[in-house]
Amino acid sequence: MLAAALADGTAHRRTSFEVFARRLPDGRRYGITGGTGRFLNALPQFTFGDSELAALEKFCDADTLAYLADYRFSGDIDGYPEGELYFPGSPVLSVHGTFAECVLLETLVLSIFNHDTAIASAAARMVSAAQGRPLIEMGSRRTHESAAVAASRAAYLAGFTGSSNLEAERTHGVPALGTSAHAFTLLHSSAGQSASDGEKAAFRAQVEALGVGTTLLVDTYDITAGVANAIDAAGPELGAVRIDSGDLGVLARQVRAQLDGLGATGTRIVVSGDLDEFAIAALRAEPVDIYGVGTSVVTGSGAPTASMVYKLVEVDGLPVAKRSSRKESHGGRKQAVRLAKESGTIVEEIVYPRDDEAGDIPSDLVARPVTTELVREGRVVADLSLASARERVQQGLLSLPWDGLKLSKGEPAVPTRMISPRGR
Amino acid sequence: MLAAALADGTAHRRTSFEVFARRLPDGRRYGITGGTGRFLNALPQFTFGDSELAALEKFCDADTLAYLADYRFSGDIDGYPEGELYFPGSPVLSVHGTFAECVLLETLVLSIFNHDTAIASAAARMVSAAQGRPLIEMGSRRTHESAAVAASRAAYLAGFTGSSNLEAERTHGVPALGTSAHAFTLLHSSAGQSASDGEKAAFRAQVEALGVGTTLLVDTYDITAGVANAIDAAGPELGAVRIDSGDLGVLARQVRAQLDGLGATGTRIVVSGDLDEFAIAALRAEPVDIYGVGTSVVTGSGAPTASMVYKLVEVDGLPVAKRSSRKESHGGRKQAVRLAKESGTIVEEIVYPRDDEAGDIPSDLVARPVTTELVREGRVVADLSLASARERVQQGLLSLPWDGLKLSKGEPAVPTRMISPRGR
Repeated sequence: MLAAALADGTAHRRTSFEVFARRLPDGRRYGITGGTGRFLNALPQFTFGDSELAALEKFCDADTLAYLADYRFSGDIDGYPEGELYFPGSPVLSVHGTFAECVLLETLVLSIFNHDTAIASAAARMVSAAQGRPLIEMGSRRTHESAAVAASRAAYLAGFTGSSNLEAERTHGVPALGTSAHAFTLLHSSAGQSASDGEKAAFRAQVEALGVGTTLLVDTYDITAGVANAIDAAGPELGAVRIDSGDLGVLARQVRAQLDGLGATGTRIVVSGDLDEFAIAALRAEPVDIYGVGTSVVTGSGAPTASMVYKLVEVDGLPVAKRSSRKESHGGRKQAVRLAKESGTIVEEIVYPRDDEAGDIPSDLVARPVTTELVREGRVVADLSLASARERVQQGLLSLPWDGLKLSKGEPAVPTRMISPRGR
Repeated sequence: MLAAALADGTAHRRTSFEVFARRLPDGRRYGITGGTGRFLNALPQFTFGDSELAALEKFCDADTLAYLADYRFSGDIDGYPEGELYFPGSPVLSVHGTFAECVLLETLVLSIFNHDTAIASAAARMVSAAQGRPLIEMGSRRTHESAAVAASRAAYLAGFTGSSNLEAERTHGVPALGTSAHAFTLLHSSAGQSASDGEKAAFRAQVEALGVGTTLLVDTYDITAGVANAIDAAGPELGAVRIDSGDLGVLARQVRAQLDGLGATGTRIVVSGDLDEFAIAALRAEPVDIYGVGTSVVTGSGAPTASMVYKLVEVDGLPVAKRSSRKESHGGRKQAVRLAKESGTIVEEIVYPRDDEAGDIPSDLVARPVTTELVREGRVVADLSLASARERVQQGLLSLPWDGLKLSKGEPAVPTRMISPRGR
């Protein structure tokens, strides 16, 4: 496409591309915009070096290679700040520049947004289901090694307390948290020794190295014996025990009673093992202190991609849209406002042409612009702090109507109204 | 765990860790081992540099940091060659060395195997459903930017013809294939010109740049007009047209008739748009020449992770296994043979202790060892060629019993028999 557009001159036409999702994953009521920060950090590095150019020689003519050698995005980008709620049709990102410079960004933009948004959106449902109890992301081993680092970041963005992924701590500042594995207990088993003695040796070694504030994994052999061994090794000041198997609700109650009986009333209970938002919600009434979540959060809990698309919506100031069946798109560069009651509860999102007005806003509603400036002439102008984004997710969840927080399948929490360009 | 094990000396015990899946994804009948090559290429690079060590200072004592600074895996690894079929309990990888050197590999091993195996397993079902018709992987935009490159490789491993991911061509030699996007056609629309004239201009530019062998996307506006414009621009020697929306079966028949009527009998039809193995199978009777597959293949078609685990199975020559509820594991270092009829159709997999025999093999069956040597004293000794792995997938699919190739939900295609260590 680039080669052909450079050859006939259309590569230099001014264009706008828009990132949006035609729908939320099956039955979801809201989504969380994720990936904005990673994308804006990647943007200045998205260039073509000697090795890349050499690999492209067989596909591209000399003019195209020369264009790529000098490539650096120099246009403007608007969009939703990271952590913002989004709904079907929300213009999450809006990219402006020549066709050539914009079309090259498609895969970079969509890969980052589709992945990070999928994880953040699933994670937010878990955070909401946990009702204030901390969640630790522990799913690195269930997804691609680089996706794992991005997934830790996205889960943290959505309100998780931290992650077992140390690289996410190094790269993104996600607090590193974790426990030990069954292998550590099994390692301490020896010929001629009981399983319980091996477990005690393992717990003593862990407490020796990490202090009594550590979390001991008590379900390698027998949970009741495991809890007794844990308090035996660490004393009643033990930080936490982890249960990773069995009926977590029943076991949590049983372990809580046992810990309290041993005087370990401050020892917390971490549960893990195939938890998703539904299992988390089902444990609300149980004495669980911390959830460890793996597979479900890093795979988007049934929705591993956010299905966002990157569509050309404007050429030389003129809205464009394809008309093939099922996949109509709305032309023109757009922006969004969100309407809320005085209480802060949102009622509608309005998506309208960039150079128009959003229309009359009822006097009992407050209109907040959602679209912000992210990049101007290739330079990032937005606040990329993960802390601000985390705050935004919290505010967003608070702003949803009650029905929007339901875990069951339903419609988007608020409708999106699309206002077409004038005279069309 | 590493710090505690170094402090009490257990870090130096000889251990075996095993990678296996307790079950296949919901209703799948076989899996394809993916990631072996990527893992073995990553292994020599898995070391801790100054930046990593600095980031670990707040978590680790000086002895642990010193151990990590010198870390390099120097043990042995056995396993299934890449592309090999696997079933529940198959010891896909078996890692041997000190506890310290093995436990550090867990996340690297599992991230690569869980991702690549999930994609390869889904892709193999699509290849089998396509019955010889070529498939192009086009899903990069639907998954994490690095996972996308690994996904292209895994799809190619499983029998896809190529991928639209150019980085996968550069890194893994996956043939680069692709078409253009709707944006290219929309770009050529101009004020005061009909949509059809814009489409013609786009097609002419593409043919001019890429020759008549190119693939033109004909569904931006009206498909019948699009096909007419395509042949008008390229002549009847046009390589292919792509249809990306609508009822693909009906449209393929209609477009085939139109192309034939225009004398373009050699022009092929590429279809794409939310295809998965079921949609591919449903198009078997239609005049489709090539499938373009995106979201479903890069997300594992409903199973984005292979659920493989990395379990300690042996310490100082002694089998170990945890006994907590629901998650029992089988102790001891293992190997596998697969039994087949003379015809080549497999009937059973036997997983047995490494130092034992597989037991009596019925005289009418052939036993083929599946476990091979991959690494010896830290050095890779296996053939990592992707071409061999592709051939292995093909042979594996041919060796499945008829029922094993069914797309519907069912049991694993062959049973796995686990032989426990003697005297247990």
